Amino acid sequence: MKIIGIDPGLRTTGFGVIHKQGSKLTYIASGTIKTPDGDLAPRLKVILDSVGEVIQTYSPDCAAIEKVFVNVNPQSTLLLGQARGAAICALVQADLQVAEYTALQVKQAVAGHGKAQKQQVQDMVQRLLALPGLPGTDAADALGVAICHAHSGEILSALGGLAPALAKKGLRMRGGRLVG
Amino acid sequence: MKIIGIDPGLRTTGFGVIHKQGSKLTYIASGTIKTPDGDLAPRLKVILDSVGEVIQTYSPDCAAIEKVFVNVNPQSTLLLGQARGAAICALVQADLQVAEYTALQVKQAVAGHGKAQKQQVQDMVQRLLALPGLPGTDAADALGVAICHAHSGEILSALGGLAPALAKKGLRMRGGRLVG
Repeated sequence: MKIIGIDPGLRTTGFGVIHKQGSKLTYIASGTIKTPDGDLAPRLKVILDSVGEVIQTYSPDCAAIEKVFVNVNPQSTLLLGQARGAAICALVQADLQVAEYTALQVKQAVAGHGKAQKQQVQDMVQRLLALPGLPGTDAADALGVAICHAHSGEILSALGGLAPALAKKGLRMRGGRLVG
Repeated sequence: MKIIGIDPGLRTTGFGVIHKQGSKLTYIASGTIKTPDGDLAPRLKVILDSVGEVIQTYSPDCAAIEKVFVNVNPQSTLLLGQARGAAICALVQADLQVAEYTALQVKQAVAGHGKAQKQQVQDMVQRLLALPGLPGTDAADALGVAICHAHSGEILSALGGLAPALAKKGLRMRGGRLVG
């Protein structure tokens, strides 16, 4: 099962794709999408198109995106909301189910506690995915969301949603495995 | 020139399409897109897909969207931002240029002053477009944004952006008209 994780932002959107096989996680790709200064609409198009390209390239099976902080500046909150909306549009357009996690949940999943610093998250993401180098902060956060989703029960429940389709083929899920 | 106007919202998104020929405005279509309660991602998909369908049906040449108020509740601002982001994604995906107007600008364009009430906007939209009945408030706001754009100089400047393409065909804009 391939998972795409997204750390949304108007200026920089991080993405990370990992593969989950049983409890084993493998790194596939990660990076950051940067938008140019200027009008909002073309910037949202960059996010929509770029996340769409990542999906086309790596064909993830499901998606997870970080819940964003409400900024003290309401205008910034509005801008961030629009950027996050564009990233989610790219995901739902590819018919991906989208799970949402807070930064706290991501830190707990990756570093074991919710007060982890950026650097600790980067270190743990590097270690968990056996990366040769330290990922950038946006990419690390995006990979962190994907890891968080891999560790959550939501994947199984998402598969549970496939039960009717599986039943038609004489298959069903038992203990997290597909049985005939 | 066909213009689509959007009044964005997470629960209800209004849309309106008008035709501008010289200074004459003609009504083409309007309506509201409602999203079901529940998770955010599927709601954004409804907005993205539905605005996309409106565009496919009426083939507008350009788009205008209302700038939204920052809500006193930051979570509401974030949700509204995401809904607006989804609507803009549908527009840019269809390669439409997107102009943005505040509610004040729309009221000034439609009713002549920025303090117009909802009812006045509805009345003036009905009158300006010679509608047989009063449009709903969301549709009226969306048609108002489209009218605002029709009255603005932005259309001419958008056409100005076409200058290189026109020049290739031996055409150019003069005084708002296409000349050979």
